[in-house]
Amino acid sequence: MNQLINDPSNVVADALRGMADAHPELRVDHENRIVFRGDAPVQGKVGLVSGGGSGHEPLHAGFVGPGMLDAACAGEIFTSPVPDQIMAATKAVDGGAGVLHIVKNYTGDVMNFEMAAEIAAAETGVEVVAVVTDDDVAVQDSLYTAGRRGVGVTVLVEKIAGAAAGQHRPLAEVADIARRVNANGRSMGVALSSCTVPTAGKPTFDLPDGQMEVGIGIHGEPGRRRAPLATAAEIAEMLVGPILGDLDFTGGDGVIAFVNGMGATPLIELYVVYHEVAAILAKAGITVARSLVGPYITSLDMAGCSVTLVKTDDEMLRLWDAPVRTPALRWGA
Amino acid sequence: MNQLINDPSNVVADALRGMADAHPELRVDHENRIVFRGDAPVQGKVGLVSGGGSGHEPLHAGFVGPGMLDAACAGEIFTSPVPDQIMAATKAVDGGAGVLHIVKNYTGDVMNFEMAAEIAAAETGVEVVAVVTDDDVAVQDSLYTAGRRGVGVTVLVEKIAGAAAGQHRPLAEVADIARRVNANGRSMGVALSSCTVPTAGKPTFDLPDGQMEVGIGIHGEPGRRRAPLATAAEIAEMLVGPILGDLDFTGGDGVIAFVNGMGATPLIELYVVYHEVAAILAKAGITVARSLVGPYITSLDMAGCSVTLVKTDDEMLRLWDAPVRTPALRWGA
Repeated sequence: MNQLINDPSNVVADALRGMADAHPELRVDHENRIVFRGDAPVQGKVGLVSGGGSGHEPLHAGFVGPGMLDAACAGEIFTSPVPDQIMAATKAVDGGAGVLHIVKNYTGDVMNFEMAAEIAAAETGVEVVAVVTDDDVAVQDSLYTAGRRGVGVTVLVEKIAGAAAGQHRPLAEVADIARRVNANGRSMGVALSSCTVPTAGKPTFDLPDGQMEVGIGIHGEPGRRRAPLATAAEIAEMLVGPILGDLDFTGGDGVIAFVNGMGATPLIELYVVYHEVAAILAKAGITVARSLVGPYITSLDMAGCSVTLVKTDDEMLRLWDAPVRTPALRWGA
Repeated sequence: MNQLINDPSNVVADALRGMADAHPELRVDHENRIVFRGDAPVQGKVGLVSGGGSGHEPLHAGFVGPGMLDAACAGEIFTSPVPDQIMAATKAVDGGAGVLHIVKNYTGDVMNFEMAAEIAAAETGVEVVAVVTDDDVAVQDSLYTAGRRGVGVTVLVEKIAGAAAGQHRPLAEVADIARRVNANGRSMGVALSSCTVPTAGKPTFDLPDGQMEVGIGIHGEPGRRRAPLATAAEIAEMLVGPILGDLDFTGGDGVIAFVNGMGATPLIELYVVYHEVAAILAKAGITVARSLVGPYITSLDMAGCSVTLVKTDDEMLRLWDAPVRTPALRWGA
């Protein structure tokens, strides 16, 4: 696959340089590969740190800024950030109110964030709480995961917890809200092509034209099954069905419906899918309170999409609507 | 190429349904395939109408809303909207201050917008002025174009003229600003893969792995030359060089630097390119005043990118910074 890169082994560093160039309101620590909001630490505010392997952009660095993350740690492509890096981010965003780690459920990420939290706490006394996202209903365990994988809900956790932190709520409360979003969120994805890790230079898996992988992970981990390419309507059923089968989404204050692009699927196709998702939800008596359509948690140049639903309450919606000013999500500010 | 669609001949209608579902603040006329801001017409405000062939999403419907367009007319994939459709949009957004048409320079678009303007004026007396964008430095004439093609600058024209209209400036002034942005803007693009028109079901052109098309048009029109795939740094030179050779971008109040994704190129690659563009501009003594990085004017599932530079003045920057609230560009509101 043709890619717009320089040296394949420098893609993460090169992209971080581009982020620093394009977003002077952020501060990029190139040595540690951390993207900070420019005014971090914010005194009296819980600091939000996330991160993970690169290749999922805009997640996470694209969500750094007022109303969302204070720092994002970029690992190598599809590789967890290291404890030192996470520790440096944690210390740097501590404004005296503690730090929340938002961690996608992959074994390496969970371990390295835990280690970093312990060391940071021991060295500086900063209080750290971790919330692990595990919203992918496709498979129980996976290539890099014990339990369910953390995928699309992570974007919504970062937004909603970020808004709560922005209101200077205490750490326990911000963590509770983050956990509530994750507990009420479910996702499932489909791949229409493989991704290509730049240093590998060839597709991660073989997916012939006319085939798709239902239940794909964001690193190309196998899903539930290989199937002939179906229509958008059929695919929407294949993704939304298992989500609705896993949690009752009726009632409450409606759902946030998020149709995410995997990286190489253009927006016109995502809107085609969104319409099918909306139709299924309407038929199931589920109200859509808010929607999000676009590539927010990607898998390099994989074609495909994922659907995430989060059952909301009034407080979650108010926090979702609160102003946010990051490279990838911005409104009201 | 695998695509997330239903019936290939219904992609535009299906995507418009998804837009209507996802964006209740917009009003979609499905029969005429027009996306309106929900409160159109706005009394006393110049109405902004754009449109063109579909397949370039979020352009144009994703730019409908306060601070930008009042209506977008969606043609079939890579096919101009028809005069009746444009006329209906023009009449519907006329709030008594006249209507500005923003038209990309393709023969069919220019002709159909002209015809619609004439009929609308004759029927209702609405004053219509058209501004045609023609920023692509790659080729002089092209497959569907006499003169230069209208590409990336269109996004910036819509934002800046939309802000001027939002201040209730008169039609002549809004049109002048739109022309000024176009006159000060230049673009060039590269394809790393072909796009696939859904009804055709096969790539528009043949581009083997390891090859690229330099100077590509947004419908897959041939560029300047076929070349072996180069690094992001070399590609940035190939795109920015001709742009800087065509207009003096030094001085003024700096440039808006826009690195656009063609549809299938993920954000991490666009940031790699942005860094190279920023480095070239710095070396040339050109100040970047604002930046935009992302897929805003796409070519279905084509991989690649384009670079657009607009030389600004203080007024253009103030209008760029003004609040905008559309599906694809949103800030301050």
